[in-house]
Amino acid sequence: MASIKPSVPKGTRDFSPAEMVRRNYIFDTIKSVFRKYGYQQIETPTMENLSTLTGKYGEEGDKLIFKVLDSGDYVSKVKKQYDAFTPVLNKLINRAYLVANLPGNEMDVDSISLANYYKNVMQDWINKKLDWQQSISKLKINREDFNITPYELGIDSPQLTQEISEKALRYDLTVPFARYVVQHQNEITFPFKRFQVQPVWRADRPQRGRYREFYQCDADVVGSDSLLNEAEFIMIYDEALTKLGLKDFSIKINNRKILSGIAQVIDKVDNIIDLTVAIDKLDKIGLGGVIKELLGKGFTDADIDKLKPVILLEGSNIEKLASLREALAQSEIGLKGCDEIETVFGYIERCPLQTAKLELDITLARGLNYYTGAIFEVKTNEVNMGSIGGGGRYDDLTGMFGLKGLTGAGISFGADRIYDVLEELNLFPAGSNQTTQVLICNFDKDGELYSLPLLQQLRRNNINTELYPAGAKIKKQMDYANNKNIPYVVVIGGDEMQTGLLTFKDMASGEQEKLTADEIVEKLNQ
Amino acid sequence: MASIKPSVPKGTRDFSPAEMVRRNYIFDTIKSVFRKYGYQQIETPTMENLSTLTGKYGEEGDKLIFKVLDSGDYVSKVKKQYDAFTPVLNKLINRAYLVANLPGNEMDVDSISLANYYKNVMQDWINKKLDWQQSISKLKINREDFNITPYELGIDSPQLTQEISEKALRYDLTVPFARYVVQHQNEITFPFKRFQVQPVWRADRPQRGRYREFYQCDADVVGSDSLLNEAEFIMIYDEALTKLGLKDFSIKINNRKILSGIAQVIDKVDNIIDLTVAIDKLDKIGLGGVIKELLGKGFTDADIDKLKPVILLEGSNIEKLASLREALAQSEIGLKGCDEIETVFGYIERCPLQTAKLELDITLARGLNYYTGAIFEVKTNEVNMGSIGGGGRYDDLTGMFGLKGLTGAGISFGADRIYDVLEELNLFPAGSNQTTQVLICNFDKDGELYSLPLLQQLRRNNINTELYPAGAKIKKQMDYANNKNIPYVVVIGGDEMQTGLLTFKDMASGEQEKLTADEIVEKLNQ
Repeated sequence: MASIKPSVPKGTRDFSPAEMVRRNYIFDTIKSVFRKYGYQQIETPTMENLSTLTGKYGEEGDKLIFKVLDSGDYVSKVKKQYDAFTPVLNKLINRAYLVANLPGNEMDVDSISLANYYKNVMQDWINKKLDWQQSISKLKINREDFNITPYELGIDSPQLTQEISEKALRYDLTVPFARYVVQHQNEITFPFKRFQVQPVWRADRPQRGRYREFYQCDADVVGSDSLLNEAEFIMIYDEALTKLGLKDFSIKINNRKILSGIAQVIDKVDNIIDLTVAIDKLDKIGLGGVIKELLGKGFTDADIDKLKPVILLEGSNIEKLASLREALAQSEIGLKGCDEIETVFGYIERCPLQTAKLELDITLARGLNYYTGAIFEVKTNEVNMGSIGGGGRYDDLTGMFGLKGLTGAGISFGADRIYDVLEELNLFPAGSNQTTQVLICNFDKDGELYSLPLLQQLRRNNINTELYPAGAKIKKQMDYANNKNIPYVVVIGGDEMQTGLLTFKDMASGEQEKLTADEIVEKLNQ
Repeated sequence: MASIKPSVPKGTRDFSPAEMVRRNYIFDTIKSVFRKYGYQQIETPTMENLSTLTGKYGEEGDKLIFKVLDSGDYVSKVKKQYDAFTPVLNKLINRAYLVANLPGNEMDVDSISLANYYKNVMQDWINKKLDWQQSISKLKINREDFNITPYELGIDSPQLTQEISEKALRYDLTVPFARYVVQHQNEITFPFKRFQVQPVWRADRPQRGRYREFYQCDADVVGSDSLLNEAEFIMIYDEALTKLGLKDFSIKINNRKILSGIAQVIDKVDNIIDLTVAIDKLDKIGLGGVIKELLGKGFTDADIDKLKPVILLEGSNIEKLASLREALAQSEIGLKGCDEIETVFGYIERCPLQTAKLELDITLARGLNYYTGAIFEVKTNEVNMGSIGGGGRYDDLTGMFGLKGLTGAGISFGADRIYDVLEELNLFPAGSNQTTQVLICNFDKDGELYSLPLLQQLRRNNINTELYPAGAKIKKQMDYANNKNIPYVVVIGGDEMQTGLLTFKDMASGEQEKLTADEIVEKLNQ
């Protein structure tokens, strides 16, 4: 039988047992740190109402949302909707043709114009620019008996999607969280510290390292403007990444208010986006490049002179802050930003970090339209890799769902990138309590029956154990142990059954010893 | 601002922090048992190619699969496809109208017939009954310049879905697992023991206890026909449900071969479905009802006489087996089924179960078309609830993807039902290492700064700890602790800061004592 080679949709992945062990290791580590800091897990549905998601990610984002087809007979539903209106139109178009054509003649231009006029009225109704009564009066008729269809009216994909899809796949964890907070506001105790580790879906063009299904790993607190939250996010990054074995990484911090202050002191508040976009590139294009870009955007040489010391801020965090205070002396909001950063540093001083370098970086501007206070970004200095985490404070997460004035802050871990970093640095632990510890070989029925009590004894002692399910050659069973990364093998032959001394083999060293069942349990429980 | 009250799509759920703790408890327990028995976790993508899923769940199942709309401009894609053909048709229909109509006249019947003839040809092309050349020759024309659309041609939802959706949401874990095994067959070591805990989606009508998104929790082994696997599934059920605190539950076992044998000895092999469907109802409708149903399906009184002792099998499992062997003495396949059950019982005898009652139940017939050997079902005897688990052996899981001859067996836990059982029996553990253990109260900046080292000390000792993020009234902070189920609270006022003796309160008992920071750590680490 010919059959198609099975595959997964592009941009999606299967995770093998070995990959799952490693992914679980990363997620479990991060989750345990979230919990240690008082964050509680929630989960939201894979599908949200399309109306919950649209308009939240910009026009480009809307296109990348995966929409789910309505179940049932959606075609009839759509047709019924149009059929209520379109017979009128169709008959009119038909009549327009008839008026202008005699048998064998070609259609004239005017009849086409008339038909187009009717179509335009119809389009306006679909787009809700005209209501039913207005449309009817423009068409000046009552009802007839022919059909036209959405396609024929030139309905495009976004319009049709509204008619045949009311649900969509989660695009990120932030909007569903905002929806959750508003929907459950009466059950929630604020400040609400939640974490969420779930997949999201984006119809991006798949490429190396970019998937259409990937996990996000977020922690957010809403209903508290305390800067202790910001300080704790820094500690969470430090603790989680230290636990995962990273030895050199930087947590960069900035504050949106400082960026506003900078724009203010050079009197370019309206050009803050141009300003920050340019400064953000300092690493890549250098000071010369940044200046060139700013001049091109209408900044003056005098502006640049004022900006230079700020952009080239040097020294320790304390020194940078001092210079910034000087430069921003005339900006209330800028000084507020400095105060906030200083408060965060003060918390960290009393709770020293284990590994992370905390670094004030005023070129950091991610998600500028979104964040209103602190901005974070985390980078490893051991591997060349984009940011492995980021976040910040936002002031109006839930406003989009009608609940105003709820401030919040959040961070995210880039799990796929962290996976690649750990792999490149060889930081995944060799063993795992998620895999089988012992394989008991199986040669024949006698050995199998003899092995069963040992199998149960090991499992009762919480040792992950397998008995090879049928008699097989030793080579095959050793391969099985090797492929599954099982560290120990017990071989039970005739001698072993007589003496009760079982052959216990360490697969890594190849060493063998003769042990009783109890001794094996004891050895593995160490 | 008026805004729509946010909600989730019907049949889907948010999971709150408290629910997540309980769900994780169930899933973690089951996963740890799967791992103890050598099962390895995999994950497959949420979306599968629609072609992977269709045709695997029957016609009704296909309707319940959630389809994902193609991203991008799917309307244009569809239109382009039809546009290549339809101008021809449209012009012809138009011409038919023109031939038969003069300005102001009504259309005559013949022109409508002619138009319908063209439409039918077009339909045949869409349904692939005619190819392009055949259609053209039936229409006897070349090409023209007007449009007709899929809607106008009376395309229905299933047809249109094929054109605008190529991906769908996972409907169960079994078909994706089969796809995984075939796709990765060269990387897999057989026997392959995998478990998978992921959500699935079904466009069922939502109702109490039935959701459109729910988790499945499956373990399967493929590539081994050893009956040890069946025995281990029984042990897995026993161990996992015992760990979850169930005290009285039954694992029912049957074998498809026994059912075949029964049909064989009464010479009703072709009526095996009728037979098993009827017997399956013994619990509900009693022997009288079963007999009535069988007589209605063409079984004779003689058949019933032969069946009665089998249906009413009594005694211990061993006694039941003996009676069965007698009744099935003439059926080779029936005796094979008895042998298989006996082998499984033999394994269990050497690895005694902790809690479960293992029960041979020949009325058990779930998924008859699917299973070929053992059939399992698990029921709690403490609560009135449907089965909380089930499974069996199947002989051709991967055949649907072209890989023949791979035998397998699998079981599933009904996580939502287990959740309800544990809740009803009050079996969820009171505390959880997933929640905050200590809240340090916060009254002012001095206390906050004083608290930070304690906060860090507790966390370094792996105690989940929160410092209330800002000064607030004690009542508010106690409410916060109560609502989050935090068992201990530390209160630090002026006295405490001077003496270093902190007020440590047990929220359950209300008891308070004065302890140093070290004593608090010690107490909590016990």
